[in-house]
This record gives sequence, structure tokens and C-alpha cells, in this order.
Amino acid sequence: MMDKTAQIVVSSTKSVEDHVLEIITMMNQGTSEIEIKGYGREINKTVDIYNQLKDKLGEGIKLSETSIGSEVKDKKRISYLLLRITKAY
Amino acid sequence: MMDKTAQIVVSSTKSVEDHVLEIITMMNQGTSEIEIKGYGREINKTVDIYNQLKDKLGEGIKLSETSIGSEVKDKKRISYLLLRITKAY
Repeated sequence: MMDKTAQIVVSSTKSVEDHVLEIITMMNQGTSEIEIKGYGREINKTVDIYNQLKDKLGEGIKLSETSIGSEVKDKKRISYLLLRITKAY
Repeated sequence: MMDKTAQIVVSSTKSVEDHVLEIITMMNQGTSEIEIKGYGREINKTVDIYNQLKDKLGEGIKLSETSIGSEVKDKKRISYLLLRITKAY
């Protein structure tokens, strides 16, 4: 089995549920590691997505990394939160 | 020297700058470890506070722990982000 990694950037227009469904679908299609990245106002949504995923999948996922920092976007510095989620089996 | 630990809950009414100043003051008064906890909409502010602290203090602080989860508050489940910051020297 291939170990696929994907990165998702949390969108301001998509709901938490949309993202959760997208991630579960990717996992079912063989992606074993997913990075969820949220910028600025989407940071709280990023945490909501993780909590909802954890509710649905329980021990099926592991939070393997959490990192925070900032990037320059459109000449403004913007904070981000990055969560790396790994399939447990 | 005493090792003091404090926890700050990010407020919806205080600015990022207010919190940064509060934390720097606490560190100058001998607190060596500070937990910054932000709930719901304050989660992105929590990350902004960390980034601004890091800008000001650079190598003087270390992010020793990041954790995320949810708690029940007023019968609603609310996500939180907790950052533990330690003085480097």
C-alpha cells in the first residue's frame, strides 16, 4: 500500500462538515496522512474540523503534529495553524 | 528561583497587544511558564499572540506544548487551543 500525504487548506467558504467529509473521503481512498492548514480567521475552524473528525473516527486517527507560525500573504503577515493527522490503521 | 506557572484565557474584549504585554510583564515578574488558552473564536487570536510574542522575544521563549480539544461550556461544545510557553533563560 502506498503512503499518500495530502494537504488541505481550510476555506472560508466551506463549512466544517464539508471539510470533515472531504478528509474522510480522502482517507477512504488511501491517503494515510493529511495536513490541515488554516490561516487567520480560519484557524478556529481548523480546530473544529479536527474535533469533529476525532468524534467521528475516534482511535482511527492520531494527531501526529501541531505547528503554528506566520506567513506573508498579499504583503500582510498572517498566522496559521497546521495539524497533521495520521490514520491509525 | 521559584518556577511559577500561570494560565491565561484569551479574552474576546482584549487586544492581541494587551495580552502580549500582560504575558511579558508576568515573565518579567518571575513566571517561567505560561499557558495561553483560547476558546472558539479566540483561537486565531491565541496564535496571533504567540506569533507576536515570538517576534518580540525571539529565542527567549520556547513553545513547549500545543494541544487542542473541546470542552462543554454553557451546554455547548466549544473547541480550544492551548499553547504552553516557557522562558528559555
